[in-house]
Amino acid sequence: MNRIELIKQIKSKKSYLCVGLDTDFTKIPKHLQYHTDAVFEFNKMIIDATKDYCISFKINTAFYEAMGLKGWEAMEKTLHYIPPTHLKIADAKRGDIGNTSAQYAKTFFEVLPFDAVTVAPYMGEDSIRPFLEYENKFAIVLGLTSNKGANDFELLSVDVKANHQTASFPHKMSSQPNDASPQPNNMSPHRLYENILTTVSKWGTTDNLMFVIGATQATELANIRKLLPDHFLLVPGVGFQGGSLQEVSKYGMNKDCGLLVNASRAIIYAGENENFAEEAKIIAQQYQREMENYLKA
Amino acid sequence: MNRIELIKQIKSKKSYLCVGLDTDFTKIPKHLQYHTDAVFEFNKMIIDATKDYCISFKINTAFYEAMGLKGWEAMEKTLHYIPPTHLKIADAKRGDIGNTSAQYAKTFFEVLPFDAVTVAPYMGEDSIRPFLEYENKFAIVLGLTSNKGANDFELLSVDVKANHQTASFPHKMSSQPNDASPQPNNMSPHRLYENILTTVSKWGTTDNLMFVIGATQATELANIRKLLPDHFLLVPGVGFQGGSLQEVSKYGMNKDCGLLVNASRAIIYAGENENFAEEAKIIAQQYQREMENYLKA
Repeated sequence: MNRIELIKQIKSKKSYLCVGLDTDFTKIPKHLQYHTDAVFEFNKMIIDATKDYCISFKINTAFYEAMGLKGWEAMEKTLHYIPPTHLKIADAKRGDIGNTSAQYAKTFFEVLPFDAVTVAPYMGEDSIRPFLEYENKFAIVLGLTSNKGANDFELLSVDVKANHQTASFPHKMSSQPNDASPQPNNMSPHRLYENILTTVSKWGTTDNLMFVIGATQATELANIRKLLPDHFLLVPGVGFQGGSLQEVSKYGMNKDCGLLVNASRAIIYAGENENFAEEAKIIAQQYQREMENYLKA
Repeated sequence: MNRIELIKQIKSKKSYLCVGLDTDFTKIPKHLQYHTDAVFEFNKMIIDATKDYCISFKINTAFYEAMGLKGWEAMEKTLHYIPPTHLKIADAKRGDIGNTSAQYAKTFFEVLPFDAVTVAPYMGEDSIRPFLEYENKFAIVLGLTSNKGANDFELLSVDVKANHQTASFPHKMSSQPNDASPQPNNMSPHRLYENILTTVSKWGTTDNLMFVIGATQATELANIRKLLPDHFLLVPGVGFQGGSLQEVSKYGMNKDCGLLVNASRAIIYAGENENFAEEAKIIAQQYQREMENYLKA
């Protein structure tokens, strides 16, 4: 799926909801646990119940790997069950030296028909490039994450002037004050995650790159939009993690919407018994209606 | 396997070689490609040929995932074939928010019997903690990697004084000049990877934490040993990537050896025909003999 089709889906469904399939066998309703293909059955019912209210499904690979071979199989079956109208994201946080990242890109874009995969930026350009070489596919690079640990390194102040590789970042801001490109005036322009957003955005385009920005970091979104006015942002952390959809939408939306807001546990575990799919549907619909209002505004 | 057993193996084999099983179906000898279980057969022969000269095998998960279900199965079978005398490393570069990292830790330490897994540090403490909660298992956290992309972010200068979370790092150095702890005098003490080494090392111990330092960064090892005198370091990048075993050993070895030096392509693809295992053995033995000399010195 490409960016244009994604925007079309958002307009048609009046939604920018991504449903996260972080399916944990121990948390699915008891009556389903006896099923020989429990995780896939659960996912199938969640997909059927929520697909009219969302434009994307995100599969968190960790939960499937933790079930071994059977889990990998359930992931494949789930992926093939998702309708072609929905952006299929592998939340896998991969990233390694070039020849190894090329294998990961092959895994998620060729062997498995995902449209997008989340990528960790720490190892730099050659760890990200292989994911950018596929047409109509997206690398979704970690920017500022939703967890407490985001404070440990992502928000560190970095001295880009001391670093040759990223010299263009401060130079652009200081020597071209009248440059039409966005100026991050109201913030420290040198935090690690900002440097990563700015640097990585030069390696790709809005057609093959998105970034992860946690919903718990909504107040940063206004600043992030000055750095990245046009990119789509994948925003997890609404729901169970406490992020506000209203704030995310207020500070993060751009002219194309530009947001994929993910909720996982708040939707898929909304109910605990035979009615779980119906209850998931109700929550997904609530999100969609709220989103419809923000899209109008 | 725990640290004491690992040191015992190093002394007994006079080796700190780790053989990397980055097995790519398209690169294994033609005669084996017709085998129904080609990748496992190849790995089995490499393990048999090299196990007397190495103390660890590292499985690069990307190459197995890229083969889908069949690859995951080959990985499991390979893992179970590695003798209990050898440290089994999953080179998987995982890391996510706490509840997801807990699933990855379960995957590699419970579902699969690995002894260690490589972990990406970008998302901070809660992304690493779950890997540290297993006895006799190691999280091997990325420090300074062997690839060109290491220059993009890992070597950025960071201003730790501006950051609350890591304030103990500069304070310790400035306010306790007579502290017996190692002082990084001959370097910029504020580069991102150094901050990560210092910060992460406080979250665990030498019994559950190691760090990845690329062999192509050998000249940094003297400085790294001032920050981390006692930890084991996993050093990839010798062989195909051009790192020098002599330099790595000179600057990185500590009283317990403290090094696991990995070679993958240089060993497993040493030969291209029926003799590939014999040729892999010859290269592994060359590394072991060189290592024996450095251990004596």
